[in-house]
Amino acid sequence: MDSEYIAPRDARLAWMSGFTGSAGTAVITQNKAVLWTDSRYWIQAERQIDCNWELQRDASTRSITNWLILEIPEGDQVGFDPFLFSVDTFDVYNTNLAPAGRILKSIPDNLVDKIWTDRPPLPSDNPTRLPDSVIERTWPVKVEQIRAQMSDNPYKPTAVLLSALDETAWLFNLRGNDIPFNPFFYSYTLLLFVHVERITEELKLYLNTSCFHSYCVQLLEYSSVRSYLQTYLKNSNVRVWVGTEYTNQALYELITPEDKLLTSTYSPVLTAKAVKDATEQRILKEAHVRDAVAVMQLLLWLEKKAPEGTETELTAAHFVDQCRSKQKNSRGPSFETISASGPNAALAHYSPSNETARKLSVNEMYLVDSGGQYLDGTTDITRTVHWGNPTDFQKEAYTRVLMGNIEISRTIFPSGTRGVNIEMLGRRALWEVGLNYGHGTGHGVGNYFGVHEWPVGFQSNNIAFQEGMFTSIEPGYYKENDFGIRIEDIAVTVPATTKHGNNYLTFETVSLVPYDRKLINTSLLSSEQLHWLNKYYETIRSVVGPELEKQGLKEEYDWMMKHTAPFLRAGASAVISSFALLATVLPSVFLHNLL
Amino acid sequence: MDSEYIAPRDARLAWMSGFTGSAGTAVITQNKAVLWTDSRYWIQAERQIDCNWELQRDASTRSITNWLILEIPEGDQVGFDPFLFSVDTFDVYNTNLAPAGRILKSIPDNLVDKIWTDRPPLPSDNPTRLPDSVIERTWPVKVEQIRAQMSDNPYKPTAVLLSALDETAWLFNLRGNDIPFNPFFYSYTLLLFVHVERITEELKLYLNTSCFHSYCVQLLEYSSVRSYLQTYLKNSNVRVWVGTEYTNQALYELITPEDKLLTSTYSPVLTAKAVKDATEQRILKEAHVRDAVAVMQLLLWLEKKAPEGTETELTAAHFVDQCRSKQKNSRGPSFETISASGPNAALAHYSPSNETARKLSVNEMYLVDSGGQYLDGTTDITRTVHWGNPTDFQKEAYTRVLMGNIEISRTIFPSGTRGVNIEMLGRRALWEVGLNYGHGTGHGVGNYFGVHEWPVGFQSNNIAFQEGMFTSIEPGYYKENDFGIRIEDIAVTVPATTKHGNNYLTFETVSLVPYDRKLINTSLLSSEQLHWLNKYYETIRSVVGPELEKQGLKEEYDWMMKHTAPFLRAGASAVISSFALLATVLPSVFLHNLL
Repeated sequence: MDSEYIAPRDARLAWMSGFTGSAGTAVITQNKAVLWTDSRYWIQAERQIDCNWELQRDASTRSITNWLILEIPEGDQVGFDPFLFSVDTFDVYNTNLAPAGRILKSIPDNLVDKIWTDRPPLPSDNPTRLPDSVIERTWPVKVEQIRAQMSDNPYKPTAVLLSALDETAWLFNLRGNDIPFNPFFYSYTLLLFVHVERITEELKLYLNTSCFHSYCVQLLEYSSVRSYLQTYLKNSNVRVWVGTEYTNQALYELITPEDKLLTSTYSPVLTAKAVKDATEQRILKEAHVRDAVAVMQLLLWLEKKAPEGTETELTAAHFVDQCRSKQKNSRGPSFETISASGPNAALAHYSPSNETARKLSVNEMYLVDSGGQYLDGTTDITRTVHWGNPTDFQKEAYTRVLMGNIEISRTIFPSGTRGVNIEMLGRRALWEVGLNYGHGTGHGVGNYFGVHEWPVGFQSNNIAFQEGMFTSIEPGYYKENDFGIRIEDIAVTVPATTKHGNNYLTFETVSLVPYDRKLINTSLLSSEQLHWLNKYYETIRSVVGPELEKQGLKEEYDWMMKHTAPFLRAGASAVISSFALLATVLPSVFLHNLL
Repeated sequence: MDSEYIAPRDARLAWMSGFTGSAGTAVITQNKAVLWTDSRYWIQAERQIDCNWELQRDASTRSITNWLILEIPEGDQVGFDPFLFSVDTFDVYNTNLAPAGRILKSIPDNLVDKIWTDRPPLPSDNPTRLPDSVIERTWPVKVEQIRAQMSDNPYKPTAVLLSALDETAWLFNLRGNDIPFNPFFYSYTLLLFVHVERITEELKLYLNTSCFHSYCVQLLEYSSVRSYLQTYLKNSNVRVWVGTEYTNQALYELITPEDKLLTSTYSPVLTAKAVKDATEQRILKEAHVRDAVAVMQLLLWLEKKAPEGTETELTAAHFVDQCRSKQKNSRGPSFETISASGPNAALAHYSPSNETARKLSVNEMYLVDSGGQYLDGTTDITRTVHWGNPTDFQKEAYTRVLMGNIEISRTIFPSGTRGVNIEMLGRRALWEVGLNYGHGTGHGVGNYFGVHEWPVGFQSNNIAFQEGMFTSIEPGYYKENDFGIRIEDIAVTVPATTKHGNNYLTFETVSLVPYDRKLINTSLLSSEQLHWLNKYYETIRSVVGPELEKQGLKEEYDWMMKHTAPFLRAGASAVISSFALLATVLPSVFLHNLL
């Protein structure tokens, strides 16, 4: 869980209203200016907007369209920027407004941009290519795979239109720096629309821009995409394939008549990207091993520093960012670190600032949700810890969140099952005692890509699981004004061996950092859950152990061994403690043998 | 699980092709006649259609539209009867055909009917009213509840159009006999469209047809619905509310312009009907107690008769139908009884006929899926039994199906959770060993209504659970050419008390018939599952026991007590058997005390 980011030049809502949250909708009429945002941002919005603005607290589309129906006379038009509306979003608005006789009017020249005289320029960094040594599948191979899907399609599309930034970046193994934390660059692909002046000679060569056979890329100016698409559609016998979830209305509205259009929820590029090939799986797992080292460094440092009362949410966030930056192939954080103590952790999208940062204390729970960009993969992990004496309720809530994480992770399901059908396993242990959480349970991640990589995950609009998909698993529990718990791991879908059947999957957790033993009430765990936990800890030892040794991190190694000591069944507490003692002695011996 | 039924006069597909299965689509061109049906019906279809017909085995809409795109030139029209297409079904066809330039053409005068000279007439039974003593909520109260929903709606609809037969029947507390097994009659309601000549004077009085204030029903001729709707729409300031899942395209296509239309997936009548009030809940549970008596009579009879080798699937089906017919308020079976032995039970929609009926034998598993219509409620229950020595695999599969039933039944979830989000609990124990089933996990039932009452259930297009909804829970497992297992109960959503939260629900099982002890491997059950099972058996004893006594069914009472003996944890087998012994002795004492 983390925020979505946009480039400063696209922060029109912040420039207009002062509100800087990651989710909001503004409507401006001749008399009123109104902002809709959800509960995560109500307090922030009240603080940031002035009295010219009105805040609406129900951020659903239905609430916005109901307001419009009350404020705007029947027959009047409601302007919108079609580049900012996906086809599906437009549909939802139109379905609500059209029956009431309010007409949506597409205005491709954004009205805010016309008065925003000091709008920030395009970022100056040019796009770069990923080395073939990292991503072994070259772009002509990927193009061929997409073409195979096109020719298999009975509607025989002649072009696929890509408007999501990560579609083009994935297809051509390119990365950019236009959006904070996300290695994307502005582009469309029908053929390829980019800001042509930003493409270096080396990249032009790589993309075969000067040839005319089947693996040549024609570069066109980013701003010409609408006019080029219109020209293309003048041909007879063309049919453009678009994914309605990501294509913007500005392009979609040009594709007429209907028989020149073929829609699916996601473009074939997005669904192909969702399944990682063997190389992508291997390097994404490797990135998670190095990332685990950075997170363990943070947790060890916190254990020592928090009792001193000198550190804050901000210094902790800074520390983990620094640890990551020292790991091989680091390309910075994958989102702004959420470092939240006590009541701050109950705010789902909190990131510390100078004004809000709490001192870390042994009297509060602490939640850290952070991730890294690496040349070989993107990571995202959340751990919640307590350095003092947690209450029984904190332990129960933490254990039930952990049970949710484990139940999803260990479940076996047929290939082709959708995340939304198994998501409740992340909530069930909480539901049993009347607890729940208000956010989703997981999202895809990519290879040096957005930390929220669609369309993989547990939401109703995510695609079915196949082997080789990476998703976060992140149940939580939040007690307002008190504390917040989230346990987030990345896992990959792998084949499961079953007694009677074939083609079943399960998850292999690739985030490899132990949970806080102090917060786990083992008597709540089923024997299957306990077994899963001990196997997971064995994996951490066998996979991260050698990496810690390689990096010469002896203190971190000892910390890891102590925190991954096997759990025994509740009721055998005498045995547990002696075993735990044994486990804290063993590692240094083990380490010496290996060094 | 059971078949859907239609009146003989609507069996156009059977009259044209000879195919009598419950699901199929036919397309006729100048040169070809093609039938699409799913795997349940392939063998039957091959047997029933002649060589003028071609059978297609992929019954998806996509397969049909792909065939049309291949066979019909671009620009040509495809005729269809708009009375047989719901708005949503039409949309799916149109979404597939329009981009390929094939145009759907609505033909309201059915072409088959024009050549079907001996088409069966309307059934001669007149609709009848449900006594107020049974359904306490009168139709003016229901109408007022729907009107409240209309005035709460920001689009201010002026009328609700009802085309699903059970919508009108529910709203006016009327039942009919036009469809086998389903107490419906042909009707639309905008105001109320019926075959006017079939409405008795008594019913006219009941419906206030001669007055003009707010609770008066205007009766209009069934066949005039299109012309009346057009007249109504000529008024200014009208807006008609339709549920797209059930409204047929023949009416929907008349509602123009767009601002005279308000759509939701289901009409407010269907969603109101889904939540049973206190009276409906009570009487539906009472019907299930009497129904349990009939099913116990069958199971006892089978235990005695099957070893003799003289009974067949047909005689067993006949026996249970007879048992039900003797229960108070019986109105016949709610669907054609599925009585299937050995390999026949692996065919999902099998009902025995003279040609197919197998002899019942101690060497085969036996599955019986049956239900009753009662004046106060509709029932649907499946039990699977073995009278000999089941294999280990049969026991494992049966136990895992039962675990699925129990896991759904005992789960606690927030009110507003959708069935599709918890449905996997019915499959998880099977998935663990690579087993699964190919049908849905449950559907709503009503009060003397269709045995498949939408929109409640576990499918993706079912609505969210609230307190007071009745659904079947029916996981299964089918081994082709060998055996079939299904365990189906009806359950009602009830408030759950949780340690920390409010507004949580769980299921209370209202089908009250014990499972086959011989097929349960208790070592696979969790302690929570065992606990649930024993509580369920206690409920059967305390609720069905007195009914058996009241009906003077001593042998059935003893059978019930023997089969509801408590299970103890696996491993305590010595204790189990002595306890079971105790349980078989106790009942007659208990019975004597009460008689």
